[in-house]
Amino acid sequence: MKRQFPFTAIVGQSELTSALKLAAIDPGIGGVLAFGDRGTGKSTAVRGLAAVLPPLKANDCPYRCDPARADAFCPVCAAELEAGRKPKIVTVPVPVVDMPLGSSEDRITGGLDLEHALLTGERRFEPGLLAKANRGFLYIDEINLLEDHLVDLLLDVAASGENVVEREGLSLRHPARFVLVGSGNPEEGELRPQLLDRFGLSVTVTTPNDVKTRIAVVKARDRFERDPSAFLDECEAAERALRDQLEAARARLDAVNVSDRILEQAAQLCISLGTDGLRAELTLVRAARALASLRGESEVGFPHLAELAPSALAHRLRRNPLEESGSGARIERALAELDAA
Amino acid sequence: MKRQFPFTAIVGQSELTSALKLAAIDPGIGGVLAFGDRGTGKSTAVRGLAAVLPPLKANDCPYRCDPARADAFCPVCAAELEAGRKPKIVTVPVPVVDMPLGSSEDRITGGLDLEHALLTGERRFEPGLLAKANRGFLYIDEINLLEDHLVDLLLDVAASGENVVEREGLSLRHPARFVLVGSGNPEEGELRPQLLDRFGLSVTVTTPNDVKTRIAVVKARDRFERDPSAFLDECEAAERALRDQLEAARARLDAVNVSDRILEQAAQLCISLGTDGLRAELTLVRAARALASLRGESEVGFPHLAELAPSALAHRLRRNPLEESGSGARIERALAELDAA
Amino acid sequence: MKRQFPFTAIVGQSELTSALKLAAIDPGIGGVLAFGDRGTGKSTAVRGLAAVLPPLKANDCPYRCDPARADAFCPVCAAELEAGRKPKIVTVPVPVVDMPLGSSEDRITGGLDLEHALLTGERRFEPGLLAKANRGFLYIDEINLLEDHLVDLLLDVAASGENVVEREGLSLRHPARFVLVGSGNPEEGELRPQLLDRFGLSVTVTTPNDVKTRIAVVKARDRFERDPSAFLDECEAAERALRDQLEAARARLDAVNVSDRILEQAAQLCISLGTDGLRAELTLVRAARALASLRGESEVGFPHLAELAPSALAHRLRRNPLEESGSGARIERALAELDAA
Amino acid sequence: MKRQFPFTAIVGQSELTSALKLAAIDPGIGGVLAFGDRGTGKSTAVRGLAAVLPPLKANDCPYRCDPARADAFCPVCAAELEAGRKPKIVTVPVPVVDMPLGSSEDRITGGLDLEHALLTGERRFEPGLLAKANRGFLYIDEINLLEDHLVDLLLDVAASGENVVEREGLSLRHPARFVLVGSGNPEEGELRPQLLDRFGLSVTVTTPNDVKTRIAVVKARDRFERDPSAFLDECEAAERALRDQLEAARARLDAVNVSDRILEQAAQLCISLGTDGLRAELTLVRAARALASLRGESEVGFPHLAELAPSALAHRLRRNPLEESGSGARIERALAELDAA
Amino acid sequence: MKRQFPFTAIVGQSELTSALKLAAIDPGIGGVLAFGDRGTGKSTAVRGLAAVLPPLKANDCPYRCDPARADAFCPVCAAELEAGRKPKIVTVPVPVVDMPLGSSEDRITGGLDLEHALLTGERRFEPGLLAKANRGFLYIDEINLLEDHLVDLLLDVAASGENVVEREGLSLRHPARFVLVGSGNPEEGELRPQLLDRFGLSVTVTTPNDVKTRIAVVKARDRFERDPSAFLDECEAAERALRDQLEAARARLDAVNVSDRILEQAAQLCISLGTDGLRAELTLVRAARALASLRGESEVGFPHLAELAPSALAHRLRRNPLEESGSGARIERALAELDAA
Amino acid sequence: MKRQFPFTAIVGQSELTSALKLAAIDPGIGGVLAFGDRGTGKSTAVRGLAAVLPPLKANDCPYRCDPARADAFCPVCAAELEAGRKPKIVTVPVPVVDMPLGSSEDRITGGLDLEHALLTGERRFEPGLLAKANRGFLYIDEINLLEDHLVDLLLDVAASGENVVEREGLSLRHPARFVLVGSGNPEEGELRPQLLDRFGLSVTVTTPNDVKTRIAVVKARDRFERDPSAFLDECEAAERALRDQLEAARARLDAVNVSDRILEQAAQLCISLGTDGLRAELTLVRAARALASLRGESEVGFPHLAELAPSALAHRLRRNPLEESGSGARIERALAELDAA
Repeated sequence: MKRQFPFTAIVGQSELTSALKLAAIDPGIGGVLAFGDRGTGKSTAVRGLAAVLPPLKANDCPYRCDPARADAFCPVCAAELEAGRKPKIVTVPVPVVDMPLGSSEDRITGGLDLEHALLTGERRFEPGLLAKANRGFLYIDEINLLEDHLVDLLLDVAASGENVVEREGLSLRHPARFVLVGSGNPEEGELRPQLLDRFGLSVTVTTPNDVKTRIAVVKARDRFERDPSAFLDECEAAERALRDQLEAARARLDAVNVSDRILEQAAQLCISLGTDGLRAELTLVRAARALASLRGESEVGFPHLAELAPSALAHRLRRNPLEESGSGARIERALAELDAA
Repeated sequence: MKRQFPFTAIVGQSELTSALKLAAIDPGIGGVLAFGDRGTGKSTAVRGLAAVLPPLKANDCPYRCDPARADAFCPVCAAELEAGRKPKIVTVPVPVVDMPLGSSEDRITGGLDLEHALLTGERRFEPGLLAKANRGFLYIDEINLLEDHLVDLLLDVAASGENVVEREGLSLRHPARFVLVGSGNPEEGELRPQLLDRFGLSVTVTTPNDVKTRIAVVKARDRFERDPSAFLDECEAAERALRDQLEAARARLDAVNVSDRILEQAAQLCISLGTDGLRAELTLVRAARALASLRGESEVGFPHLAELAPSALAHRLRRNPLEESGSGARIERALAELDAA
Repeated sequence: MKRQFPFTAIVGQSELTSALKLAAIDPGIGGVLAFGDRGTGKSTAVRGLAAVLPPLKANDCPYRCDPARADAFCPVCAAELEAGRKPKIVTVPVPVVDMPLGSSEDRITGGLDLEHALLTGERRFEPGLLAKANRGFLYIDEINLLEDHLVDLLLDVAASGENVVEREGLSLRHPARFVLVGSGNPEEGELRPQLLDRFGLSVTVTTPNDVKTRIAVVKARDRFERDPSAFLDECEAAERALRDQLEAARARLDAVNVSDRILEQAAQLCISLGTDGLRAELTLVRAARALASLRGESEVGFPHLAELAPSALAHRLRRNPLEESGSGARIERALAELDAA
Repeated sequence: MKRQFPFTAIVGQSELTSALKLAAIDPGIGGVLAFGDRGTGKSTAVRGLAAVLPPLKANDCPYRCDPARADAFCPVCAAELEAGRKPKIVTVPVPVVDMPLGSSEDRITGGLDLEHALLTGERRFEPGLLAKANRGFLYIDEINLLEDHLVDLLLDVAASGENVVEREGLSLRHPARFVLVGSGNPEEGELRPQLLDRFGLSVTVTTPNDVKTRIAVVKARDRFERDPSAFLDECEAAERALRDQLEAARARLDAVNVSDRILEQAAQLCISLGTDGLRAELTLVRAARALASLRGESEVGFPHLAELAPSALAHRLRRNPLEESGSGARIERALAELDAA
Repeated sequence: MKRQFPFTAIVGQSELTSALKLAAIDPGIGGVLAFGDRGTGKSTAVRGLAAVLPPLKANDCPYRCDPARADAFCPVCAAELEAGRKPKIVTVPVPVVDMPLGSSEDRITGGLDLEHALLTGERRFEPGLLAKANRGFLYIDEINLLEDHLVDLLLDVAASGENVVEREGLSLRHPARFVLVGSGNPEEGELRPQLLDRFGLSVTVTTPNDVKTRIAVVKARDRFERDPSAFLDECEAAERALRDQLEAARARLDAVNVSDRILEQAAQLCISLGTDGLRAELTLVRAARALASLRGESEVGFPHLAELAPSALAHRLRRNPLEESGSGARIERALAELDAA
Repeated sequence: MKRQFPFTAIVGQSELTSALKLAAIDPGIGGVLAFGDRGTGKSTAVRGLAAVLPPLKANDCPYRCDPARADAFCPVCAAELEAGRKPKIVTVPVPVVDMPLGSSEDRITGGLDLEHALLTGERRFEPGLLAKANRGFLYIDEINLLEDHLVDLLLDVAASGENVVEREGLSLRHPARFVLVGSGNPEEGELRPQLLDRFGLSVTVTTPNDVKTRIAVVKARDRFERDPSAFLDECEAAERALRDQLEAARARLDAVNVSDRILEQAAQLCISLGTDGLRAELTLVRAARALASLRGESEVGFPHLAELAPSALAHRLRRNPLEESGSGARIERALAELDAA
């Protein structure tokens, strides 16, 4: 209903827009965390992403099941299949669900359909925001203000791709594959290290400091707000081009090669930085593959790793109180050593 | 029902009345925050504003949709349109909703119409205060005593112009464009910097210190309280004149020119003061345009920026513990440097 | 039902009984706060006031609307008027509502009439204590133990003269003009300065220290408790005389003159004492007018101001940690300077 | 149902049993507070009091209204009277209500009769423990573990003799005159000074330290527990004698003279001890009169004051951190000075 | 349903098993508290007690009323009796109620039978765990993790032998005589001294430290867990013998003589140890009588006191921070002095 | 529905997979706790276990009762048996219940079937997760984030093998024998020592530090995620082999001999390490027997004890602040001394 500022008209903030594109190409990379100053367009970028994504082929069910993944059908589609019927297939836009702060856990996970229960005396599941977000994006502004157990719940579901509901006499699981995108202001509160680790990529956004960029931003917003239709028309072509590019990148993703040499470099990088577990290198490798694919390249190279290492690793480093340099510098140094090796 | 003390009869407090007028001309400036001593007429000013605003053309729906913005129609009007009917247009006063402390979140955002649900077994949305305030003003006295999450909710809705409801099995969005006006006493509690930043303009009101003004205030209030009808009659002409002036200012707003030079000065001012994000200069520019329009001028000039800089910027400066001078003095200095440049 | 100790039989405590009389003559003075030792008859004074007040002419509605104020009629009377009917007029005693600690917000403001809703499926407002107190007194013992938000609510309604209800699907306003009387023991907790400021007059009551007075009190209470009927008969004449005096004072209140000289003295007094806002001098002036009227005088003079300054101003002074003398001495000194000027 | 250890068989603890007797003679003395070691028979004394009190003449209503006090009838009896009927009079035992810890506020004050409301759609008041205790005793073991607001509520009702209910759409008052008896162990928590002050008499009970008394107590309890019927038979005569004595003391209470000299001594005693308010001397005078009556004397004398001063005053003294001696010694000294004067 | 490890097969832990036997012989001794290391068989002992206790003669009512105590009948039996009918008598096992942590207060005390209320519109009491435990044992593992107010409630009921319910519109009392047995680990939290004092006996259990005992325990448990039926058959005779011994001890309990000399020794012991109140010596005397009876002796002697003093007194001593020796040593010393006297 | 990464394809982490196998062979060993870094495949191991376990013979009831344990039948099967019917026997997979964080206590223990109650007015028990897990595994990720009382509840039920429900008017017990498996990250919170002690085995998992293993893990996961069907086909044979091995180990478990010498060594080991209670050596002995059986050996030997001592004992040692070496080293030393003896 509301017109969104176009994704391609965003001035600056390339680290953020790039991370969002990679997550759109390979949702397996995991969520994206955008932390930084207020008023720098974090929300605008995420909300603008909706309009630019290529549409989905989906079953005509409340969860938009992927017709190609019969093994992960929702109970509705599974019942159809069992009854020997093929679910009807439709084309739908990629969902970008904007979770309002204060959404109840019930509304997030879905719950008992009270209306139905009262009228018929029968329990029925009413899908929630996790169902709406299946195969798309779930966006939470000010995620650092969300209660920890809800962040946890969202990350669990995002990681497993399934929403398991066990309460109010309901026992049910349905597909819930989505990219969790959180934005926030670190001054208002931090996330626990354990939660940070579970986001695939993390970017920091700051207020631009050169007058030119600032004027460009102010002018663009001013024009958009005073005549949104005209502004959207101007951006139409760029939006379409990006959509095509993303679609192509997805299509060739499986064909991008990741050599053992690259796996080794990713492992050595993570060992030298001391990240816990193997999530860091899995994310780094997948993001590098998506980046190569976005650029039309057929092989992941060291530069891809180097370019993405800050977004994939910085939020997973333990703070070292004895070391003065920040995580950025530590990653730089580790990359340089690796490159020299 | 209750007679309001007329806006034009307010003695002194010009910074506050001016900010309210600008927000009435361009609601995009964002909310107005009035902090200061108790008993200085903050509430009187805001409540008096209702009577002086020019009426609205609106669809005859619970949200008073703007007939010129079919792209932002509420579900009711959208359904009408889809059915090939044109919503009926009516003329209504600008709403000024006075939110009582202790309003429930449900009553603010709207919620399930329980009566209807119990009688018919069907869910229906019952619009709340945000719906009532659409296209008008939402006033909260003692906003600093309101729970943070409610302030946040109100600011979010005011910024997006939409109320998104996702709970109790309801999933709905409706237009909710309004100017949030908050007043409060800083001695009773402060707002978080992040919330401050989201108000467009902020003014401080103090007790007048000269005997003449004080006697004038006491006499006016005394006359009003003892014979409100006579007092209102006296002020009728001034009220009408102000109404005409505001209507004219709105009409010519889009025609007021903002040169790149002005945008640059606004940017440089904000950079030198170190405000986070770009919200500060967007607000400053828009408020300056509204001020020019209110005065019948066709071009924004440096004096407009200079006049409004305190209201638009002071509440967005970080406190500098090493600097003795207050935010007012820092703005003065930055303006002087800019002017000298 | 329960027999009250008569107002005119109270021994000592003249500052308190005087403040109550002034508030009864001009409710616009605002609430009365009585702080002091337990067991000093604060409750007795307030509760005894009920029997001595002259009765009201009122519409026969749940709010006892003032027939002379059609502009402030409740929804019931307004509907009558609109339908071309004149509300029936009755004579009723001035209500003195004794709010029990632990009254729910619902019961205070009024709320949904659940019985009616369940039986008819229709929402109806059930008036609360604020409705009961309209045009009378609302008494709260131990007001300092009441939750701040309830004190705030009561002060807001008392100040605006209206009860605005926005919840449970109800949206309604009705007249609620009353004098709020609070008593309490400062050892059990203080009121915030902001709440103090909103009470019109404030008096301190202490245990009498001379044996004679104490014996008189103990004897009077003993006689009253052992034979209340006889005791009440003895006081009948004094009660009637006071009732007549209050009625006369109200009638001539508007005729009492307040010269500019008096307004100036009130302003200068407040400036020199540094009270915030203008509420202090408004209260002082109104209380002085009521005092003059109570005494049958036609003009407010400096002695009236001087007599009432402690009750009207002491609770509004900021504590000055460098100044040894209490607020009483500061007011004395300011009055002396003013008188000398 | 359960057999109580007889009041007259209690070994030692005369200060406690004496205070209970005085409160039974003149309930206007106010509540009794018994603090001390566990296992010293506090509960036994209070619970044993029930069996020994002379029965009441009462209306046959849920509140056992006093037929002699038509001015304080409950709504039920008032309605009877209004309808021209005289309430039926019955003879009932003095109620001793043993309030279990964890009683809900609802159950204490009474509340909506949900059963009736659900069946008939009509609100009806269901009397609570305060109604049950009318004209009798309300006993709370471990009163110091009770939430302060409940203690407050109980003291308020006990003081006013009325239970005022304003909630759940109910608005009602009924007589609730009772003696509040609290017992507790000071090691588990103290009462606020303000609550202490509102109890009429306060006694401390300790473990007896001589072997003889201890053996006597253990033997008596052993005999009672192993053959309660036989034990009760043995005590029958003593119980009856005490009942007659209490009845006589009540009857002659009004005839006991309290001279001005005694009032003056009581006042001087309280002034020299610096008790707040006049509650201390009112209690002292009334308790002294009850004591004289219990002993069959026609005039209160200084010895009565002296005997009761510790129970009536000790819990009302402010702690003086500079003074080494306890409140008992301070009272002794003040009495000695008074006697010498 | 579940097979219990037999009481007589317990290896070691004689202090605990002895205390349980005494409480089974004379429930008036009060509860038993077993504190100590985890994994030492505390629960096994208590749970095993059920199978070994001689059965009860009881009325056929929900409370298993004692046919010999018509004065303490439940409302059901009392109604029967009043109607001239004699309750039917049945033979039932001694109940051992194992209260799960997390039992609601409602379920413990009993409460409104919601099903019945909804179906018939009539309130009916549904007996809880206290009713189930009447005349038996109520066992709480990890009693130190239970909320204090529930421990308090259980101790109150255990002490009075009655469950008094005053809520949800229910007003009822029924017999609830049971031995409260609590076990816990002091490392997880302590009980307040006031609660400790209310348990009759308290024992400490520790891990056996000799290899032989440990092997015996492990072997017994292993055999029991792998073939419970065979194991139970082996123990049958020992179980029956203990049952007979307990039954005989109960029968001759009243015939056991307690001389004044013994009472005096118990009193002197408690005075020299400074226990509060008289509960300590009452318990000591009763436990000694039960011990004599268990051993078939007709007279309580000093050795009985000496043997039981640690269990009866240790948990009632105040901690003496100046004294190095523990409570055990202090009791030893006091006994020695007494014996020497 | 969701495909699991196969148990036999897990790279490294042999301590964890071994502990899970032993618990599968003898559930009496007690739960398994896996603590360590995030992202090390803890969840994968447990979830993969489901597919590899041999199926169960079970009654066709909600609890899958063991047909061979009529003494522990659920109420449903017990009723069948009593009615002279033999429950139908079915073959079902071993349940592995994955308890979502945030499961309500109601859903865990089972509770009132509200639907049934509302429709029929009759209470019926609705089995919960504990019922689902009977005879299988109950897995809780991030068990250290679970509220203590829920961990406690789960451990209690796991230990007793029964779920006892006493609330909402339900009173019921059903078999609930399962192995509790918890995983967690010690950085997010620890378990209380008392809870640790109740887990049978505890293992620590860490991020592999050699590049080869890391590459192997990343490659395996990458292949599995990109083509799960092919990957599962490859592992089919290994999975079947493990299933057969586990089935054989269970069958010969009772035949494995545990000599007194072994029991003595286990006892001496625990004494020298100072573990509380006897749970440690019971677990050690049982785990050693299961290990011997898994390896096809007929006699438990010292090497079995030595191999399992870290998993069975390390989490039960008290921290010794004076000793520098960790629990691992202390166990090594104790084993060496024992071996030398």
